[in-house]
Order: sequence, then C-alpha cells, then structure tokens
Amino acid sequence: MSLETLASRVGFLISRSSTSRGLIPTRFFSTTSTKMALESYTFGPYKIDSREVFYNTNLSYALVNMRPVVPGHVLVCPRREVKRFADLTVDETSDLWITAQKVGSRLESYHKATSLTLTIQDGPQAGQTVPHVHIHILPRKGGDFENNDEIYDALDEKEKELKQKLDLDKERKDRSLEEMAQEAEEYRKLFL
Amino acid sequence: MSLETLASRVGFLISRSSTSRGLIPTRFFSTTSTKMALESYTFGPYKIDSREVFYNTNLSYALVNMRPVVPGHVLVCPRREVKRFADLTVDETSDLWITAQKVGSRLESYHKATSLTLTIQDGPQAGQTVPHVHIHILPRKGGDFENNDEIYDALDEKEKELKQKLDLDKERKDRSLEEMAQEAEEYRKLFL
Repeated sequence: MSLETLASRVGFLISRSSTSRGLIPTRFFSTTSTKMALESYTFGPYKIDSREVFYNTNLSYALVNMRPVVPGHVLVCPRREVKRFADLTVDETSDLWITAQKVGSRLESYHKATSLTLTIQDGPQAGQTVPHVHIHILPRKGGDFENNDEIYDALDEKEKELKQKLDLDKERKDRSLEEMAQEAEEYRKLFL
Repeated sequence: MSLETLASRVGFLISRSSTSRGLIPTRFFSTTSTKMALESYTFGPYKIDSREVFYNTNLSYALVNMRPVVPGHVLVCPRREVKRFADLTVDETSDLWITAQKVGSRLESYHKATSLTLTIQDGPQAGQTVPHVHIHILPRKGGDFENNDEIYDALDEKEKELKQKLDLDKERKDRSLEEMAQEAEEYRKLFL
C-alpha cells in the first residue's frame, strides 16, 4: 500500500514529509504569524499541516480529522513519534491524557454533546494503521448511533469506503484543507 | 433495573454495599494477610471484592472481569468515585493512565498478545453503564476478531446475552469468584 493510500485510509489530511523522520525545521510556515502556525507536526511518517492543529503543549498536540465519524471527532497525539502507548515516558503519558481531557471537555460542550468516546488502538492487531500513538476523541449524543458499538463500525466503514473509492478512481471526497482549517480555527478559540 | 441486574450487565463481580457511598471500613477483609486484601474498593455504588483487584496505587486500582471478551480483559479505575473523565484531578488522570500503561504492557506480554485496545466510555451516551470512570484494557492478537470493530460488538453482545439470561432464569453463567481470584493472583505476580 502506498503512503498516500495509507494516509487516506486513516482519514487525515497529511502530506509526505521529505525530511522523513529527521529533524523538521521549526519555522516551516514562515509566512504565518501565530506561534502555533510556526511549528511543525509529524504523524508517523507524515507531516501535518499546522492549520489542522488547534491545540498543543510542549509534548502533545490536537488536530481535526479529514473524515470525522461525528462532529468534533479529533485526535490527540504525542509530539514525539512512538508506535506504542508503552513507549511514552511518564511525562508524555500524563501530558497526552491531560490534553485529551481538556480537548474532550471543550469539544463536548462546543458540540452540545453529553458524552465522549476516548480510544487508543495500540498496535496493528488493535486496528492501528499509522505507527504513532493517537487518541480518538468522539463527542457523543443520545441517538447518534442506535447501538453504542456502531460508532466503531462507522469508524471502520469510513476507512473501507475511502479505500474502495481510491481503488476505483482518483476522486477524493475528503474535506478540503480550507474546511478543516476553518474548523480548527473555531476550536482554537475554545482554548484562549 | 435492579442494582444486581445492572451489576450483571456490566460483567463484574460486585456486591451491593450496605454503606452505599459512605465511608467503607478499611479492614473489611480482616482474615486475609496481604496489604492489598486489607483495602476496600468501590465501583460506582458497588463494593468490589478485594480478591478481584491485582494492582493498585494511592489513586487507582486494576481488577479482573467477570465476563472477559478476550483473555486479559481488565479494568483500571480511579479510587475516587467520579462519573466523568473530566471530573478527575490532574494527579488522578496521570496516575490512572500510568497505571493503565503498566497494566496493559504486562498483560499483553503475559497473554502473548501483540496489541492493546484501551477505551473509556465516558458518559451514558458513550455506553457507560456504571457512573464511575473506568478504562477497558483488552490484549489483542492477530485473528482474535475478523474485523477490529467486532471486539466492540462482542463487548455489547456479552452484555445482551447476560441480560437475556437473567431475564429468563436465575442461573448465572458468570465466572466464579474463585476463578477470578485465581486470575488476579496470577496477575499480582507480574507487579512484584
């Protein structure tokens, strides 16, 4: 599977990094003015456009999703690329989940939801497709899915649909970067 | 729904606490000799038999499951009874996930698994049935479920089967306390 197909399957707007796993320039987006925009982020072997990132700490960051299963379905990742949850240091583990707690709480409120699903698929046999630890956060509402477990079916279904589409033609039905950037911009205001 | 039925549905060996949410005697199991056995644990409105608990810290504890979906399917809870993940303090959040990291890693190795699913169903609309934060940890292996999302179906299916059984007759197909205590005893050795 190509990196691009893999990238598409996991549903995030990512671009292949020419620097791979090496040092990434910290002022990659030199034409933007905010501190967040000056930073760069990697997700496994991919480089994340900083406009998708709406919250960060020294150790973690939160980004919007190309194909969210529910409104407000986002990811929280450690900045350091590690494959497995057990590879994180104590400080990284704490920071990751305190970040997830804060992000989940504000997005639940923003989307007028009443619950949250928080999941790590930790390793390939648990469904992990990009070898970089990430927490899925999904704001939940009564009746969003008939049975609770269907939200996981939906996560998989989105990936399957996308894979089939990519196998058949090159048309991308993903959200545009502009749409995602706009969503991230809204979420950034929740942390001011 | 009665507390007993609710207790059964969530698949844990629990007994109704006569002290409800009040202070629980710290020497409830006075005939046992280990430090862990002298402590008491509550899970929402229920009291947990200390023989089910195989690891603890000052803020968190880990317990075995009455109806595990896969071998090594366990729970990690904060000691303090709070309903939502956002209700936890920074220290509790950190401790909970550092505990989950340690527990997951050792159980994955013990069960010769290769991945982990870690999930919080945070609030009723996310499938939470007992109003006390808990992390599900499931060691995963290649081929344990045909599609990854089926593990969530299986979680729900176990609950449905159990509910139907309880509606039809009084026979309990749950694991015995002896079996669960034996499993917990094995897991305790992983943390010596």
